[in-house]
Amino acid sequence: MLRFDPRLYLVTQRYNYSREEFLERVDAAIRGGVSAVQLREKQAEGREFYELALALGALCRQRRVSFWVNDRVDVALAAQADGVHVGQADLPAEALRRILPRQTLLGVSAYTVAEAQAAEQAGADCVGCGALFSTETKPIKLLSREELQAIRAAVRIPILAIGGINADNAAVPIAAGADGVAVVSAIMLAADPHAAAKKLRQVVDEALATRQ
Amino acid sequence: MLRFDPRLYLVTQRYNYSREEFLERVDAAIRGGVSAVQLREKQAEGREFYELALALGALCRQRRVSFWVNDRVDVALAAQADGVHVGQADLPAEALRRILPRQTLLGVSAYTVAEAQAAEQAGADCVGCGALFSTETKPIKLLSREELQAIRAAVRIPILAIGGINADNAAVPIAAGADGVAVVSAIMLAADPHAAAKKLRQVVDEALATRQ
Repeated sequence: MLRFDPRLYLVTQRYNYSREEFLERVDAAIRGGVSAVQLREKQAEGREFYELALALGALCRQRRVSFWVNDRVDVALAAQADGVHVGQADLPAEALRRILPRQTLLGVSAYTVAEAQAAEQAGADCVGCGALFSTETKPIKLLSREELQAIRAAVRIPILAIGGINADNAAVPIAAGADGVAVVSAIMLAADPHAAAKKLRQVVDEALATRQ
Repeated sequence: MLRFDPRLYLVTQRYNYSREEFLERVDAAIRGGVSAVQLREKQAEGREFYELALALGALCRQRRVSFWVNDRVDVALAAQADGVHVGQADLPAEALRRILPRQTLLGVSAYTVAEAQAAEQAGADCVGCGALFSTETKPIKLLSREELQAIRAAVRIPILAIGGINADNAAVPIAAGADGVAVVSAIMLAADPHAAAKKLRQVVDEALATRQ
């Protein structure tokens, strides 16, 4: 089991990439500084999702970054992912903790202090909070810097800031108390995913160093 | 753990029923002769699906019929369903067998002899085969009586015939070797679900007796 390093958490989106291009982009991003990868597939059916999880999980193990699966607990279990990430509309964290192996990490999306505290109390290993900046990937309400600070004050588990984050603004959530940033398009749509990851990781590391 | 009785297997669909009406209809159908219930929710998100599974699972336990969940292994595990049923596009049966508790039943949809044999070899406890008759619920290709007989000759696990089955035609798949019939609209849309289940069960029981 890898230690979970939340600093630069890549949430995948396949866009129109072929499977090979997709895996190559993620690999380049990991070599650039991505510290954790979450496979998110909103359209794929179970078998396709599972097969992609096996391939991406193997890549992450090889590169020694933790591998997460979004939503599909069955896929996470079958592909022996390090973690599974769920939203507020998914099964409650308490129920998931009962069915997940003890070593499987559980991430929960939280938009309020109450949701973050409930997730932590139910056994979540991290919370994803956002969106801090407007984003095309997933239209959700914006979380203010003050709300993120309030969540930081309320929970001890790692906080991942998500939503509209890129190298220009990634220092903001870190300064507000996040332990890392989760990005989708800033890496998956970058012309050079290796360079994009490297720059983002540098911004996050500098912001973390400034905070300490 | 209940013995799985495949004779009259109700696959739910909520249509426009309220939660209370829905549970009442299923209860009436069980009292009429339904021997197994599968919760199928194509639209519900995880939490809603899970909460419905808890309610329907409790009802099935009380009435002593096995309770199955369609597709969502996480919901099946969290709600401690007796079984989970998956299609060919879902995770492979081998992978599911590795993550399911030993006592959890696994059903797999199979449209060919090869799929049915593969499911059995992978550890499936039953196969759902169809559609034998055209149906509005789920548009799929029709399986001939001869194909069903060939599947019967090829596997030892119980076969559930599904697709367009009602009291007028339920004897056909049983005569061809099915161990039971799975129905959706014939019960869920019936004016009187208790009477509909009673009639269907009578047809199935008579066809089974004739075959022996």
